[in-house]
Amino acid sequence: MTRVFNFCAGPAALPTSVLERAQAELLDWQGRGLSVMEMSHRSDEFVSIAQQAEANLRTLLQIPANYKVLFMQGGASSQFAMVPLNLLGQGGTPNYIYSGIWAKKAMAEAKRYANQHVAASAEISQLTAMPSQADIQLSADAAYLHYTSNETIGGLRAPEVFQTPEQVPLVCDMSSDILSAPVDIEKFGIIYAGAQKNIGPAGLTLVIIRDDLLDQALEITPTMMQYKVMAENESMYNTPPTFAWYLAGLVFDWLLNDIGGLQVMAQINQRKAQKLYQAIDTSDFYTNPIQPAYRSIMNVPFQLADDALNARFLADAQEAGLLNLSGHRSVGGMRASIYNAVPETAVDALIDFMRDFEQRHA
Amino acid sequence: MTRVFNFCAGPAALPTSVLERAQAELLDWQGRGLSVMEMSHRSDEFVSIAQQAEANLRTLLQIPANYKVLFMQGGASSQFAMVPLNLLGQGGTPNYIYSGIWAKKAMAEAKRYANQHVAASAEISQLTAMPSQADIQLSADAAYLHYTSNETIGGLRAPEVFQTPEQVPLVCDMSSDILSAPVDIEKFGIIYAGAQKNIGPAGLTLVIIRDDLLDQALEITPTMMQYKVMAENESMYNTPPTFAWYLAGLVFDWLLNDIGGLQVMAQINQRKAQKLYQAIDTSDFYTNPIQPAYRSIMNVPFQLADDALNARFLADAQEAGLLNLSGHRSVGGMRASIYNAVPETAVDALIDFMRDFEQRHA
Repeated sequence: MTRVFNFCAGPAALPTSVLERAQAELLDWQGRGLSVMEMSHRSDEFVSIAQQAEANLRTLLQIPANYKVLFMQGGASSQFAMVPLNLLGQGGTPNYIYSGIWAKKAMAEAKRYANQHVAASAEISQLTAMPSQADIQLSADAAYLHYTSNETIGGLRAPEVFQTPEQVPLVCDMSSDILSAPVDIEKFGIIYAGAQKNIGPAGLTLVIIRDDLLDQALEITPTMMQYKVMAENESMYNTPPTFAWYLAGLVFDWLLNDIGGLQVMAQINQRKAQKLYQAIDTSDFYTNPIQPAYRSIMNVPFQLADDALNARFLADAQEAGLLNLSGHRSVGGMRASIYNAVPETAVDALIDFMRDFEQRHA
Repeated sequence: MTRVFNFCAGPAALPTSVLERAQAELLDWQGRGLSVMEMSHRSDEFVSIAQQAEANLRTLLQIPANYKVLFMQGGASSQFAMVPLNLLGQGGTPNYIYSGIWAKKAMAEAKRYANQHVAASAEISQLTAMPSQADIQLSADAAYLHYTSNETIGGLRAPEVFQTPEQVPLVCDMSSDILSAPVDIEKFGIIYAGAQKNIGPAGLTLVIIRDDLLDQALEITPTMMQYKVMAENESMYNTPPTFAWYLAGLVFDWLLNDIGGLQVMAQINQRKAQKLYQAIDTSDFYTNPIQPAYRSIMNVPFQLADDALNARFLADAQEAGLLNLSGHRSVGGMRASIYNAVPETAVDALIDFMRDFEQRHA
């Protein structure tokens, strides 16, 4: 078996050692004679798996005790509705920072429940830079401020955490850069993230929420969408996605014990991104439009000098064992997603391939 | 490795051959060099997996062309809200048949969106029999009639499909007996089922919906809860739970090609249930309270003559490789869930153990 280098934007590459462990245990978890998939979520065995996963996540992100961690379903797209449903029970205006396609989707969903205010927009820079703190103008009665820390499609990221007045919780869609570097949880009211980039397989969604925000839901909120219900039931109000939760736990364990924590992970990620952007910037053949300070560390979109070569580039890359380099269908071009589980050797191989391709076609 | 006999009510046993295939392909699906978990849901590879799963399900259940199959997240508990949210857009009164704990949960959720009418109730029989067709009294403006075909906790099932006037769609929570036997899909407006009993791992929810019911949602329905959006996007409006979908596909393949379809599966299930109920009925030591015509084929609750022996029974059973026989925490006693993937040999082993335990303790 040869494992390829997988630059998929999500569902994304998982650490090979995590998959090997899951494979070894698939029919018989620790001599119990059954798969994790076949365990009651209320069994001692699964509860220990679930608790260990949460404990390791808390260590990795240094999550304070007054924050709950929820293991949910439905992806970030469900959170786009859950955030307004859970935070607008006492009125107020949802405030959003516009930064690209994912921010727009979150905003579209909030419109269903209240008029919203755009507190800042990356449109001024034509989506090549995030708004800065000074650009933010909150509405008078802001219920919360929502932003997207990393635009997976645009390849744009917020280099720093925004600040809000104490009564305005900061809400962040961190789907595509959570766990890529340390982050100061206390600056946030809510962080949410779909699992399928840096956490585990698709079908799991992580929510980290300050506990004073748990009880502000609109009456119309379905039980399964109420953060309070999920928190009170340790994310087991109903049957959770147990196997995805277990795999996330293996990824957290890998980050903590194999990688050595988020400081180390951040250094590796910086190095990976830096050398790829440098390869792009030192070439006349490849371009990336994002202003350097706002370039994503996780998703690197780039264009070839000639769009007519795109198909050739992708076919040759695949031949070389470099998969899923096609840009999102809405923007075209190329995109290399270099999440935590994409090793530095994959980035090196990509850069070598890009240089070679350029020499053959420039 | 020794695989145990697993009588868990859910997440439940999966066919060993399905797990073996998933294990073999876990790091490298069909020579592609990556796991199914690591594939883009929009890749040719995953789309073929997804479509094959749906095609096999359509064959197994003979699903007519005017029904959509949706692969969703959130479990039946999310469907409890989605059904009223998606069907009450044109007004009307939700009608429910009460048959136990799961029906009650569905009813509680509908109350959030409209006054409801209890069209029939199993309370008359103290939950030992399902209402019959003659018991059903719909309200004048019924928007739909909802029932639970199998009460997983009570061990009570509806032996026949209820009939409704043409303008009143029949909605069924089939979580714990879907695919246990053939069913006439055309009698239903909507069937839904959490995956973790007869379909696959937890984290996937199946919805089978007649296409004229897709466009009746309340305005407040979150995008991710709109059946119409899921149908229009082939269940890929956002990233679906790809690995769970793939595993469900392996289970459908097993049912179709290893078992030989739902007629054969139904015969095996009948035989399993019949011998277990017979063992209970011919003993003075074990009892099951449900009237024979309404006994579940999937979940067999039973009590010992002396509750003080429960802990001993469970410990000895575990010792004998018979796991998860404890009744639901809300009712106590024992429960053997004998879903499709629990082999007849497991039921035989349980009956032998029960006889032996009785001889030692009666």
